[in-house]
Amino acid sequence: MLPPLSPSGLLANSLDRLLGYQLRRASAVMMADLARELADIELRPAEVTALLVVAENPGCSQTEVGQVLGIKRANMVPIVSRLMDRGLIDRERADGRSHALRLTDTGAAVVADAKARIERHEQRFSHLFDADTLAALHAALPVIRAQREDAEG
Amino acid sequence: MLPPLSPSGLLANSLDRLLGYQLRRASAVMMADLARELADIELRPAEVTALLVVAENPGCSQTEVGQVLGIKRANMVPIVSRLMDRGLIDRERADGRSHALRLTDTGAAVVADAKARIERHEQRFSHLFDADTLAALHAALPVIRAQREDAEG
Repeated sequence: MLPPLSPSGLLANSLDRLLGYQLRRASAVMMADLARELADIELRPAEVTALLVVAENPGCSQTEVGQVLGIKRANMVPIVSRLMDRGLIDRERADGRSHALRLTDTGAAVVADAKARIERHEQRFSHLFDADTLAALHAALPVIRAQREDAEG
Repeated sequence: MLPPLSPSGLLANSLDRLLGYQLRRASAVMMADLARELADIELRPAEVTALLVVAENPGCSQTEVGQVLGIKRANMVPIVSRLMDRGLIDRERADGRSHALRLTDTGAAVVADAKARIERHEQRFSHLFDADTLAALHAALPVIRAQREDAEG
């Protein structure tokens, strides 16, 4: 595990008592760790999550992937383009209104590798907690998320 | 409170079992809510957090503010510039190596308003939980954060 650092304490910071601030800082630490874990396969966390949703839902549309991940349409475009440029997914016309996304064989191999990396990352953090605390986190975080699923980013 | 929406369920998404993913989604929801709460005073969450740290630590340097908030030097520059352009903070040479940041009178008035807005935002979410769950969140999130305080963004 990474060595704990604590530059806090240098300055007073009453933000620490805020749930939103603690969530943001904790999420930033996990995102930075995931980004490092994925750096070898040259994919960003948002690209990998989109790839995994396509892997689980062959034939889904870009719009559906964006909806399930809470990513705005404009932000989905470069993510899907990058995955196509890398040859990890392809897109075929499904009907009059949308394109069906599917993994390529290369994409399937990258998904297997990415899942192992995500699992290592997840274990590093979930091992910090006992079962009760983990269960409390897994119960509480979706309650926050359910307050507003749209328009996150 | 905002009406709960749940576009999830459209597609399979096994990411939901991941702590990191749940943290990111919950944090995005709170950040979007905070951004809406702060929109009237035309400040972004990162600008307001920097303003609050300066308010609590008169004479601190831009580097120190970045350290306590986990914001990279390059990302602090536009934040401090914007706060100076808005006339909320000023900067005077403190010694040979750094500038001391202080609130202006306008800045002090905006801080009071921003604190009330942050409090309303925080209450909307903390009221979702009983005292035990809130205590568990406030105990667990700093443990994640302590794994790596540097290089978040």
